[in-house]
Amino acid sequence: MVSEKIRQALAGSSAIRAMFREGKELAAKVGAENVYDFSLGNPATPAPSALNQAIKDILDETNPLVVHGYMDNSGYEDVRQAVADHLNRRFHTSFDYHNVIMTVGAAGGLNIIFKTILDPGSEVVAFAPYFGEYKSYAANFDARLVEAAPDFESFQPDIDDFREKLSPATRAVIINTPNNPTGVVYTDETMKRISSVLLEKEKEYGTDIYLISDEPYRELVYDGIEEDFLTKYYHNTIVGYSFSKSLSLPGERIGYVIVPDEASDSELLIDGMNVSNRTLGFVNAPSLMQKAVARCLEEKTNIAFYDANRKLLYDNLTKFGFTCIRPQGAFYLWMKSPLEDEEEFVRLAKEYNLILVKGSAFACPGYVRIAYCVSPDMITRSLPSFEKLAAECGL
Amino acid sequence: MVSEKIRQALAGSSAIRAMFREGKELAAKVGAENVYDFSLGNPATPAPSALNQAIKDILDETNPLVVHGYMDNSGYEDVRQAVADHLNRRFHTSFDYHNVIMTVGAAGGLNIIFKTILDPGSEVVAFAPYFGEYKSYAANFDARLVEAAPDFESFQPDIDDFREKLSPATRAVIINTPNNPTGVVYTDETMKRISSVLLEKEKEYGTDIYLISDEPYRELVYDGIEEDFLTKYYHNTIVGYSFSKSLSLPGERIGYVIVPDEASDSELLIDGMNVSNRTLGFVNAPSLMQKAVARCLEEKTNIAFYDANRKLLYDNLTKFGFTCIRPQGAFYLWMKSPLEDEEEFVRLAKEYNLILVKGSAFACPGYVRIAYCVSPDMITRSLPSFEKLAAECGL
Repeated sequence: MVSEKIRQALAGSSAIRAMFREGKELAAKVGAENVYDFSLGNPATPAPSALNQAIKDILDETNPLVVHGYMDNSGYEDVRQAVADHLNRRFHTSFDYHNVIMTVGAAGGLNIIFKTILDPGSEVVAFAPYFGEYKSYAANFDARLVEAAPDFESFQPDIDDFREKLSPATRAVIINTPNNPTGVVYTDETMKRISSVLLEKEKEYGTDIYLISDEPYRELVYDGIEEDFLTKYYHNTIVGYSFSKSLSLPGERIGYVIVPDEASDSELLIDGMNVSNRTLGFVNAPSLMQKAVARCLEEKTNIAFYDANRKLLYDNLTKFGFTCIRPQGAFYLWMKSPLEDEEEFVRLAKEYNLILVKGSAFACPGYVRIAYCVSPDMITRSLPSFEKLAAECGL
Repeated sequence: MVSEKIRQALAGSSAIRAMFREGKELAAKVGAENVYDFSLGNPATPAPSALNQAIKDILDETNPLVVHGYMDNSGYEDVRQAVADHLNRRFHTSFDYHNVIMTVGAAGGLNIIFKTILDPGSEVVAFAPYFGEYKSYAANFDARLVEAAPDFESFQPDIDDFREKLSPATRAVIINTPNNPTGVVYTDETMKRISSVLLEKEKEYGTDIYLISDEPYRELVYDGIEEDFLTKYYHNTIVGYSFSKSLSLPGERIGYVIVPDEASDSELLIDGMNVSNRTLGFVNAPSLMQKAVARCLEEKTNIAFYDANRKLLYDNLTKFGFTCIRPQGAFYLWMKSPLEDEEEFVRLAKEYNLILVKGSAFACPGYVRIAYCVSPDMITRSLPSFEKLAAECGL
């Protein structure tokens, strides 16, 4: 006796998590050291040591009634101000604490945003390929996810297709740059074109269309690329951030949402997200971890670690004959399946103990995602398997 | 441009949180030391020192990739097994890790339960007076909260009224003992009568009706009362637990759900809650705090602290002429409003700097809730105000 939505969700549950489980099952059979699990975005480089030190210091210095206690549903004011100050220093923005809502990770953040702006039947446009959970999050509020196509050369959005996918029912557009699963970073030109189409359509329909920027990978960029803060491109931009990857804390569920004052009805949005944080059952972002990340805003994860992995994997896989998008950010490699049916390719890869995730999990069949947030040693050990797989596919 | 549901929620938002804010505003005017804020269930006795020590030990002993990393959406297996072992020792149950899902507090727990079992139009029966958020949680899934009346002498449920409120659409009944807001602990007889009515109605309707036991106050009982584990009364019982009050960690958002094997479709329920944890955006309970509470399952909060507050407040308020239910558990005093309109009484109390919460926030007008999880000193200082308030009400 489970709900109809859950029955459906169980039938088509997360392909990423399914591959992660398959990897664990395979490891039990052939030994963990013989399985090359590229399924999950679980960082293999640890949190900066400053993070654990910050936790200990906070426990020593702060009244436990404060550090473990309730605060406003949007989070501690001092933590929110610290986040605002950090962004202002870095991006010359002008936020203060009231623009910041601390959240239970980016997933919690996206859900409070969606609850606040979506009605049943609302449409949310996402650029394929996209993180499959967006669909679940929209479904939580009986909204519909509409897919816009990529340019299949660059994996930047296809702006003409995007324009056609907007409608008077569009309440939100969700973007994710650096991108999961492609590793692509949207260019300044892409952002300007997205903004221009949104302004055009807001005017045409007389509606507000919020651009939701899902930013778990903001800090993970390579080759000296720098993205500006995306609220600068378009007035109705809402940012959802996570410390999962930037500080290697995916289990801690800590992030924030930024609602700039220039967003339409910004005060109402902020109040709505405050209420949503409570009524969806998050109540507030975990208290000790709020205080801890506030002390580590200037800390950096080990970018060199990911960068070395990126080059090791990209250089070798292309050498073996695979066609890959060269990643500029995040920690995913997006590879064209050499077989027409990429699910068949994923099964074949598993015979070589390689655990990949099918592109159709990201609304983009014909490709696979390889998460390289793993140990460099595992990548090195996996290379002969990739080479044999390439040979078997006739590359 | 916010959603219709949020527009409504903002109009009728939490009376508890509203009083908490009014208390802070009043404190800014007249000085914090002159405001007697009894609005929020925020413990004033700190977490056991073992908890902070456990956190430090875990950080020293455990690989940061494990302690801050992803795990199964249901939580770490070792943590879940520790919870099962603890319950088995204490209540002679026979759970193991697969019956335990770690959650983002009890609020997160209730939401994953509701998502898993409720369809639009489903009914959830709650016994008035009840925690107002239950209504929001049911509304998240377009289900309807149906209220069953209390016996107004004992504030145990009125079993005859309960029977009448069940219908073929009833998917769940939610109970909360020790109770927020009354402080009442359901008797063994009450539990047996609830169970008997549920079995009768399951048979009559040919449906499963899940009894959801919301247990943030399980450890907070006085006068030597002991409650058995509620899964023993009725096969379809699901437990939602929180460490917020038992370890004074309300800001950390950590709890668990128990699904016993004897519940109908228990495996499906467990799988459904695992998926719900992910798709609702919780992903998993905060990782470090999972490990920390697993080491503190035998720790106790300072019951003597609450018990002294309970007696101080109950004895004096009844002496001043107020009519109160003598609390046997939790940390709330349930007081009959001396004025017919308890909202007017709450306003009058505020003139004496006393911040109380109206009973209508708990679907039970005519009463007020006084949270005594505060400093004993504040209670002592508040007594002259309560005495004057009693006099003004003609008691």
